[in-house]
Amino acid sequence: MSSETLAARRDRAFGAGAPLFYNTPLHIVRGEGVELFDVDGRRYVDMYNNVPCVGHANPHVVEAMARQQGTLNVHSRYLHEGIVAFAERLAALHGPQIESVIFSCSGTEANEVALRMARLATGKSGIVCTNATYHGNSAAIGKLTRIGDISNAKGDVRAIPFPEKLRPLVPGASEADLAEAYLARLRGAIRGLEEDGTGFAGLIVCSIFANEGLPDVPHGFMARAAEIVHAAGGLVIADEVQAGYCRTGRWWGYDVLGFTPDIVVTGKPMGNGLPLAATAASRKLVEGFRATTRYFNTFASSPLQAAVGMAVVDVIEREGLAANVATVGAFLKSALAERKGRFVSIADVRGHGLFIGVEIVKTDAARTPDADRAVEIINRLKDKGFLTSNAGAYRNVVKIRPPLVFAKSHAEEFLVAFDATMVELDG
Amino acid sequence: MSSETLAARRDRAFGAGAPLFYNTPLHIVRGEGVELFDVDGRRYVDMYNNVPCVGHANPHVVEAMARQQGTLNVHSRYLHEGIVAFAERLAALHGPQIESVIFSCSGTEANEVALRMARLATGKSGIVCTNATYHGNSAAIGKLTRIGDISNAKGDVRAIPFPEKLRPLVPGASEADLAEAYLARLRGAIRGLEEDGTGFAGLIVCSIFANEGLPDVPHGFMARAAEIVHAAGGLVIADEVQAGYCRTGRWWGYDVLGFTPDIVVTGKPMGNGLPLAATAASRKLVEGFRATTRYFNTFASSPLQAAVGMAVVDVIEREGLAANVATVGAFLKSALAERKGRFVSIADVRGHGLFIGVEIVKTDAARTPDADRAVEIINRLKDKGFLTSNAGAYRNVVKIRPPLVFAKSHAEEFLVAFDATMVELDG
Repeated sequence: MSSETLAARRDRAFGAGAPLFYNTPLHIVRGEGVELFDVDGRRYVDMYNNVPCVGHANPHVVEAMARQQGTLNVHSRYLHEGIVAFAERLAALHGPQIESVIFSCSGTEANEVALRMARLATGKSGIVCTNATYHGNSAAIGKLTRIGDISNAKGDVRAIPFPEKLRPLVPGASEADLAEAYLARLRGAIRGLEEDGTGFAGLIVCSIFANEGLPDVPHGFMARAAEIVHAAGGLVIADEVQAGYCRTGRWWGYDVLGFTPDIVVTGKPMGNGLPLAATAASRKLVEGFRATTRYFNTFASSPLQAAVGMAVVDVIEREGLAANVATVGAFLKSALAERKGRFVSIADVRGHGLFIGVEIVKTDAARTPDADRAVEIINRLKDKGFLTSNAGAYRNVVKIRPPLVFAKSHAEEFLVAFDATMVELDG
Repeated sequence: MSSETLAARRDRAFGAGAPLFYNTPLHIVRGEGVELFDVDGRRYVDMYNNVPCVGHANPHVVEAMARQQGTLNVHSRYLHEGIVAFAERLAALHGPQIESVIFSCSGTEANEVALRMARLATGKSGIVCTNATYHGNSAAIGKLTRIGDISNAKGDVRAIPFPEKLRPLVPGASEADLAEAYLARLRGAIRGLEEDGTGFAGLIVCSIFANEGLPDVPHGFMARAAEIVHAAGGLVIADEVQAGYCRTGRWWGYDVLGFTPDIVVTGKPMGNGLPLAATAASRKLVEGFRATTRYFNTFASSPLQAAVGMAVVDVIEREGLAANVATVGAFLKSALAERKGRFVSIADVRGHGLFIGVEIVKTDAARTPDADRAVEIINRLKDKGFLTSNAGAYRNVVKIRPPLVFAKSHAEEFLVAFDATMVELDG
């Protein structure tokens, strides 16, 4: 089966337009740890995939999955200890404000629960999000996607500019004044929802603004934002689908940005590829939601989700992956930051732990975002055996987000390919 | 760990109010085939669970799951043959109008895709559903849930009374006239959507009206309904989450009810417990959806979904489960129908294949639905080692829906317990 034939079959079976990475898509057959292998046996270092967080084909996860599927896998309207123990363990990874968990099968489903929970608890429907975000693909959650021009926000969703220092809302302002300028937009959005009768239910953000491009956030912004939200009677929803599970070197992105959410949404890495997501909050918030909705999710809270979810946390803790992420991430980020002076198209290197963004720009005075060059870089890196992608509000950020088991040796290997790529392009 | 202690832990970890079956919940630890075992080693015959369709802990599924998770499990933006082959196989199980597939992780997600696809294809937003249905738990899909009083239907969703013969819309009417009366309601709902400017996008039904209580549908209703929908420029969405995958003794519920859908949604049994769902339609419909939405689902279309989905279809075909369902289902339905004269609280026995509903009523002249007695029956059956539930528009239908591998010997065992239960209650 040639890749061309497979691509044609895929266009019919999925319908043309199902997203594919890279100019020449990768035809993939096997993975192990941070390595992926294509149909010709070629090795790639995976620097994109956060879902297989403890490594592709992790044997502990495979074993837990097979053992549980071979023992029992059924819905949650029977008593089963495994999923209760996993909910307890997940809640205990947060502060005391998080007590109870609602499991689901995707970040979209978990964000659906979170928004509905906030709306039921407040009796209001207005949600504030940032203007270049993504929280899922359902009708309700899709309304939050990349709103862009914030004057387009209407109905029960309002967008505010995401906080950043590279292209600041107020050029030349001090960091404190800049934070205040973004907070003023939050206050304005809340006021707008109150004035038109919609009312304010809550703020939802990715704790590290991943889809926005991992901006450097003015100091103190999120802590103050949470205060403003609470003062207005709203709830703070932290979408930790990308930010959580030690991605930043700490368990949660909100620890890094310094705020305390009321509702936490987790997903992607939880099951190392098994569909598994969760919405966690105080017992009072969760019970309020349950009493009104009688929420049930066929595949969620299953013994299989429990066993696999437990195995993933086991590996993260046993192998000290938070420390690995912090160490290797700091090394790689610092090495990339050194390249900023060397290669003219690098405007900025940002991120936390093993989630790093390299901002690519044109050489004009305005340092215009250059998505085409970012795409060129990721394609050349792929040809050299390193898998990344592009992201950010302007799609011009090279996104580096490997499995948590990524080692310093992988980073060193990558830097050689990165330098070669940048020399090819920037000279 | 006593069941009482576990229940208290569960109330905290999940929040109280997470649904549980039976007056004394089942504390479950193991399953095999159609049998489940509780913490004390007690055996139960599972006559409820349709998700583990090829049997609890089916070894072929366990093997496929472990092998694929140990080889590769990654998102769908790389080329991978497994999921393309599974999409082709799934599409080929339908008629020629179904060509392409969008995979997702739950029936809710798949119905989200279906509704959005219909709305994009028609440029209209109005959806017609029945008044006692359930298609999922998201904000958009939850709007279809048990609308009940159809005068409450507003906005972009309109409900019509579900078609049935037991409590007909027009008492005493001929079957043809009764079908016509229900069709008139469909026409009225479409007209209402057109007149208020919403416009009509499509009709969504469970092909066998499972949540409505598996009613006997006036002959020809669905074929005529599909004609009316198409004449009005709308699309017919068959929710086969419960009806499909040989549940009725045929592959699809729409084969039994005699209509041809434009969009087919499948879910529950597809992965024998792995979260796996699909929305299938013509290539044109799917590509229209993809072009507008650029839909992507992190955990869906994965090599794991493919391998497990394939294994389930393999077992269904290799073990001739459609024939088993037809044979055993006909035996059980006929045996239960015989009991209708013997036990006064049984008003009706309905269903298709291994999906059978026993309608429980009071002894008054109106034969009032008796949900309390149905609940009493399912609890007594559970105490005797047989797991069922109650369902239907009035919650008064004993719902029998075992794994497809349910054998005649299980049915015979069940009938003894059923008779004993009915004698206890009806005398």
